[in-house]
Amino acid sequence: MPSQTFILTFVCDDMPGIVANVTNHIFKSGGNILESHQYNDIETNRFFMRTAYRVADPAGSTALEAGFEAIAAHYGMDYRIRARSQRPKVLILASKADHCLADLLYRRRIGELDMDVTGIISNHPRDTYASLDFGDIPFHHLPTIPGNKAAQESQIWALFQSTGSELAVLARYMQILSDDLAAKFSGRCINIHHSFLPGFKGAKPYHQAHQRGVKVIGATAHYVTADLDEGPIIEQDVERISHSDTPDDLIRKGRDIERRVLARAIRFHLDGRVLVNGPRTVVFRD
Amino acid sequence: MPSQTFILTFVCDDMPGIVANVTNHIFKSGGNILESHQYNDIETNRFFMRTAYRVADPAGSTALEAGFEAIAAHYGMDYRIRARSQRPKVLILASKADHCLADLLYRRRIGELDMDVTGIISNHPRDTYASLDFGDIPFHHLPTIPGNKAAQESQIWALFQSTGSELAVLARYMQILSDDLAAKFSGRCINIHHSFLPGFKGAKPYHQAHQRGVKVIGATAHYVTADLDEGPIIEQDVERISHSDTPDDLIRKGRDIERRVLARAIRFHLDGRVLVNGPRTVVFRD
Amino acid sequence: MPSQTFILTFVCDDMPGIVANVTNHIFKSGGNILESHQYNDIETNRFFMRTAYRVADPAGSTALEAGFEAIAAHYGMDYRIRARSQRPKVLILASKADHCLADLLYRRRIGELDMDVTGIISNHPRDTYASLDFGDIPFHHLPTIPGNKAAQESQIWALFQSTGSELAVLARYMQILSDDLAAKFSGRCINIHHSFLPGFKGAKPYHQAHQRGVKVIGATAHYVTADLDEGPIIEQDVERISHSDTPDDLIRKGRDIERRVLARAIRFHLDGRVLVNGPRTVVFRD
Amino acid sequence: MPSQTFILTFVCDDMPGIVANVTNHIFKSGGNILESHQYNDIETNRFFMRTAYRVADPAGSTALEAGFEAIAAHYGMDYRIRARSQRPKVLILASKADHCLADLLYRRRIGELDMDVTGIISNHPRDTYASLDFGDIPFHHLPTIPGNKAAQESQIWALFQSTGSELAVLARYMQILSDDLAAKFSGRCINIHHSFLPGFKGAKPYHQAHQRGVKVIGATAHYVTADLDEGPIIEQDVERISHSDTPDDLIRKGRDIERRVLARAIRFHLDGRVLVNGPRTVVFRD
Repeated sequence: MPSQTFILTFVCDDMPGIVANVTNHIFKSGGNILESHQYNDIETNRFFMRTAYRVADPAGSTALEAGFEAIAAHYGMDYRIRARSQRPKVLILASKADHCLADLLYRRRIGELDMDVTGIISNHPRDTYASLDFGDIPFHHLPTIPGNKAAQESQIWALFQSTGSELAVLARYMQILSDDLAAKFSGRCINIHHSFLPGFKGAKPYHQAHQRGVKVIGATAHYVTADLDEGPIIEQDVERISHSDTPDDLIRKGRDIERRVLARAIRFHLDGRVLVNGPRTVVFRD
Repeated sequence: MPSQTFILTFVCDDMPGIVANVTNHIFKSGGNILESHQYNDIETNRFFMRTAYRVADPAGSTALEAGFEAIAAHYGMDYRIRARSQRPKVLILASKADHCLADLLYRRRIGELDMDVTGIISNHPRDTYASLDFGDIPFHHLPTIPGNKAAQESQIWALFQSTGSELAVLARYMQILSDDLAAKFSGRCINIHHSFLPGFKGAKPYHQAHQRGVKVIGATAHYVTADLDEGPIIEQDVERISHSDTPDDLIRKGRDIERRVLARAIRFHLDGRVLVNGPRTVVFRD
Repeated sequence: MPSQTFILTFVCDDMPGIVANVTNHIFKSGGNILESHQYNDIETNRFFMRTAYRVADPAGSTALEAGFEAIAAHYGMDYRIRARSQRPKVLILASKADHCLADLLYRRRIGELDMDVTGIISNHPRDTYASLDFGDIPFHHLPTIPGNKAAQESQIWALFQSTGSELAVLARYMQILSDDLAAKFSGRCINIHHSFLPGFKGAKPYHQAHQRGVKVIGATAHYVTADLDEGPIIEQDVERISHSDTPDDLIRKGRDIERRVLARAIRFHLDGRVLVNGPRTVVFRD
Repeated sequence: MPSQTFILTFVCDDMPGIVANVTNHIFKSGGNILESHQYNDIETNRFFMRTAYRVADPAGSTALEAGFEAIAAHYGMDYRIRARSQRPKVLILASKADHCLADLLYRRRIGELDMDVTGIISNHPRDTYASLDFGDIPFHHLPTIPGNKAAQESQIWALFQSTGSELAVLARYMQILSDDLAAKFSGRCINIHHSFLPGFKGAKPYHQAHQRGVKVIGATAHYVTADLDEGPIIEQDVERISHSDTPDDLIRKGRDIERRVLARAIRFHLDGRVLVNGPRTVVFRD
């Protein structure tokens, strides 16, 4: 029987012995640790861990997971064990600017982002993405018109649920989610904001950046919360600019930053490398 | 007679023929252009230029500068011609954290920053910098106590004037300049703020950054204006951080960014490479 | 009549008065300079300039160009004047890894890279790029088999000429051009090498980088010459890596660097911003 | 009794159960893990770990270390346990360019690099560093003259031994160590090479970089081995440059990169974060 790789992540209050007990359990259950990261937040006394382990046979993994429940209960852990082979289901939302969408579909196609895209939602029609091959991914045109926000969001939420998606990606989706929808998605929706937060929140951040005269621009991938552009930051990156860059130049240069920042954030999230820590994240990068 | 290098910088409304007229004048006056940069701000229709030229003999340079007045008047230029050999006079202010001060003194000593430091002012006493060799640079201990701000600032201004300084550098000088003093310095005072503006203005920016959970920190050198941390940005740089960085780690990592950002900004300014453009700057980097 | 924008680039021996004469001529001919860069290589005494100017009417631009011939002859200039509206013709070559190809086609589609792609050549068949929409760009499958290198290269050259292409892009095209073909392309062929040259020339650079244990990887876009990976470098960029990155991780992380480096290099080249300076380039970046 | 922090590092062949046994032992001995990193090199099947733990009382730490011997023997570990309070002894060597030396002394002075500098050796006399306050660190002028290399190196080695130093830092020390001395230092000598290795080994790397026309320069900190500039790389960093940078500009810009790269490498090494892995290093960064 082929061995399987599992990703265990958990958060709990810190105390002596956690790692010893967890790794001991994995070892006793026939697991072999491939990679392990931990972090103690001394301010809050919370402990974060991510361990990738391999088990030779399915019986072993079942026993491992069953036995882990007691440890998790003992420490009051918020935990998750996931098989690497289980492809995550992701729902992507986009608007007019499709550079992030095109980039994510490419990475999926070549196997770099191993995910099952359950659907592509846009407030723009299919022909906006005429050159993009969606394969057999269903496309949903959910236009927004004055007064229909709640109805349109209901459709988004319905699709998220009916497809069994675990992550929604706002890939330069330009509609602001209502507090209600943001709350529903809590921790399961990643947005790419085209600025280096906390600077330039809201609309037209490149124009704001140009106005302010910054010498570096950036992009930020974060979990969506009710507060616009305030959610826990997952990943950021930057690029130097100069006085000669117009807002259009910033938009152009920004596309590259947005693409790679969003892709990294999604990759980290799907690989269980991101753990929310209040208003922040713990990211066990690879 | 040895040739001399001059730096000409000017700003004026843009119109056809400026470069032709200016370069023609330099050529006719026996000047040879070594380096030249220009920028047209299409939003404001303002034109910015910096030209470094060499003139074989002093008579030629005098004629060149005399003749330039008419061109400058014709175009309504705000201009300056400075001989490279003329060492700028710089007044440095510091507080407890002396990494920027130490760094600037080192660069000056090895000839990297060619400036005449007219004085070092601090609200802390001399022994705060026991290990630093100030050479023959006068040190002025100007402590701040409740109620003496205006008096203390008068001493700063008096020193700036009496030493004939052209630039004041707030090298992690932690006292906030009053609107009055900021206005007096206008365009002649560079501050290093230990954050990547416009984020985390004001006090304890590293603690703010830690709280916000950004994944990148930075530092910003800017001209001081009445609005705290709002003046035209000259230079910025960043460094990646992670969830495991405590505020003290950010302070430590930030020191390196602050040192190099401030040094670059000062170098650009002293070499006539920075031209203020409203709330922003044009920086002809080298 | 609508105004047109032109890009003038030239190289010549440096001497006083060049800029004055050139800008004066542009001005007298009714041109208005939009952007201008120059560089004096003091080692070789060569002068490089790029000026973008606008002329109100076609008659003016014709006169400007006609009159420029005398100036060019006087200074022994190697020069070029090109209308910005004239879309450059570019031939792209690719192999199995299509990330650069896909990226260039995307940028062209959204108008970021304004070029006329005259053809896509690959040593792999069309279905290798099943998901990529080539639109009406002709695809040419030119397989390489032992013994047919010269014949296959003749076809490449024939296509380059018959399409009137001015630039060939080796977008992770993995066949090494013969000295003969490299010489024919001289200065008109850009390659992306997946390492930070001069390190890790030749095959499997990511494996070489992994073996060497570098902490930073990069990609290099350069003009092709007879010496493999030795041609004048146009653009480079890097990314931090760690001991935990396997060669496959480097390949993955490297794709993003390769894409942006190649795209920037092509953009600079097509916009007349790159001038070859012996074994190096002068790049007037935007 | 106050608690103490210890750093345990070890390398051994990988096999299931190592982490469980090690962390279990720490736990049972009353230790509390503060930070832990591990890495499995799947190519060589070698396992690397660094764990920082705190023990409430000295008796506990003695027992922990005594008990660890059996575990280490069982796994064939190459290991080390060091108390954080034990300040490492470091010998610094410098030559004419003193920017790295000045920078390290500054970081030590403000407590950023917690080390006991046992001496400063230079092939140049003390007055080369007139402005630098060495405090009570002994300075040794060991000039090199034709024919005295072996004798001069004997003095270096004698000082290294007599001072009980554990690390020698070549802070832009420009004499090439003989194979003999390099071998003696093995793993205990860090050099800063002023290029982004593997490019531009040997002399005048900035001139080499300028000649090659790279668009990015860097610096590399590595362990010294018999092969010049070939030892395991610890840390690297880069900076963008352009065609207008002369070799002197590269030297100037390079100083900043060298300073921070060397300082980081030393910091990592002294904090037990660097483990040699054949020709490479594993670096558990903070």
